Amino acid sequence: MPTLYLIPTPIAGEALHTIPPYVQEIARGLDVFIAERAKTARHFIKSLGPAKPLPEILVVELSDDSDPEEARHAFREAIKDGRDVGLLSEAGCPGVADPGAAIVALAQRMNVRVVPLVGPSSLLLALMASGMNGQQFAFHGYLSPKRPELARDLRRLEQLARQHDQTQLFIETPYRSQMVLEVALDTLQPDTGFGVAQDLSGAGEFIRSLPVRDWKRGTPVALEKLPAVFLVGRLKE
Amino acid sequence: MPTLYLIPTPIAGEALHTIPPYVQEIARGLDVFIAERAKTARHFIKSLGPAKPLPEILVVELSDDSDPEEARHAFREAIKDGRDVGLLSEAGCPGVADPGAAIVALAQRMNVRVVPLVGPSSLLLALMASGMNGQQFAFHGYLSPKRPELARDLRRLEQLARQHDQTQLFIETPYRSQMVLEVALDTLQPDTGFGVAQDLSGAGEFIRSLPVRDWKRGTPVALEKLPAVFLVGRLKE
Repeated sequence: MPTLYLIPTPIAGEALHTIPPYVQEIARGLDVFIAERAKTARHFIKSLGPAKPLPEILVVELSDDSDPEEARHAFREAIKDGRDVGLLSEAGCPGVADPGAAIVALAQRMNVRVVPLVGPSSLLLALMASGMNGQQFAFHGYLSPKRPELARDLRRLEQLARQHDQTQLFIETPYRSQMVLEVALDTLQPDTGFGVAQDLSGAGEFIRSLPVRDWKRGTPVALEKLPAVFLVGRLKE
Repeated sequence: MPTLYLIPTPIAGEALHTIPPYVQEIARGLDVFIAERAKTARHFIKSLGPAKPLPEILVVELSDDSDPEEARHAFREAIKDGRDVGLLSEAGCPGVADPGAAIVALAQRMNVRVVPLVGPSSLLLALMASGMNGQQFAFHGYLSPKRPELARDLRRLEQLARQHDQTQLFIETPYRSQMVLEVALDTLQPDTGFGVAQDLSGAGEFIRSLPVRDWKRGTPVALEKLPAVFLVGRLKE
């Protein structure tokens, strides 16, 4: 039965040790991939030591800029030929914060078997390490990039967090990490919990989760320009 | 520097292959654990082949029924002695849908290094495999256990999903899976997406995610009494 495998990739540099061997083994045997970026995907596939020579492995791009029909067509053809397909995100788990969900939805509609595989997710690792409520949480993707709108967004998340005791997660591009931290500490209430988790599973891993009051009391933090997950909520007693 | 390691455990039976070797290696070297249930934890630790004999390994329980001060005390003592501590959930990632977040919060307040490790999460695997929006999602834990209140909860989640294009996730105890499916198909709009993901990474893995209309058109499904994640949202085009 042809299968769509959802294959996580490392979220920090070359951290291949975060991909369980059974996942590497499955990926090694595939020769059709749909990936957010073909170049990164080929690099990852090569690092696994694939069963087939690289030139014989088909990698079709599905990004925000590509025509999704191309990836859908390649998927339908592969399934028709009885071949398994691997879905790869640029980093982490496919289908979570990338365009890959469209292929998963197609597979579901076609009644093709979908098998999600275990691997690193910066959202989940950040939530685990936050000490905030993990029984109720929401992920919002990117907030507004500019200061006044970001402050307004943060107040909205703070309100959601307080009303529902629901931890709020969002991400931002690496070079804006420090700005997000500054706006958060200026905007949020002293007893609101605020968390930063950077370069998870990488050499630059940095995780701090504290009430805003305690962030301000401590030594000021200068965040590196690294991928980051941010959290707004309440630290558990 | 004493460290709190957040150690995922298998979510389906004995699926140790879903725990990356570097995580098993770290867990193998620890001799203090805080765990949701001591018995399951000892079984897991034993399966890893720990460095120390089992009787010399301290496992302190932190469940909804235990006195949290006991676990906190054990944690403070271990850190004071310069020993690393492992946090274990009953299944999956600690700190996500278990009482472990309280220890993580304590570690954060004490400025103890917190290292979240990669492993299986039924929520994340279910989201990956749903074909629904993974850029915006919310997890709600358990909904109301009885039919009329559950129907009301499901309508609320449907409204949230439509208003914000936000995928809604919840869990239910295994023996209520079939009831949840029935109420969902009776309650939700025909074009609303509904997903079920059971026994993820296990032998009984079952995943289906379709608009309610298509659930009703297909062969009726009888869900097994297995752990399940449910999703309400919209399948990607």
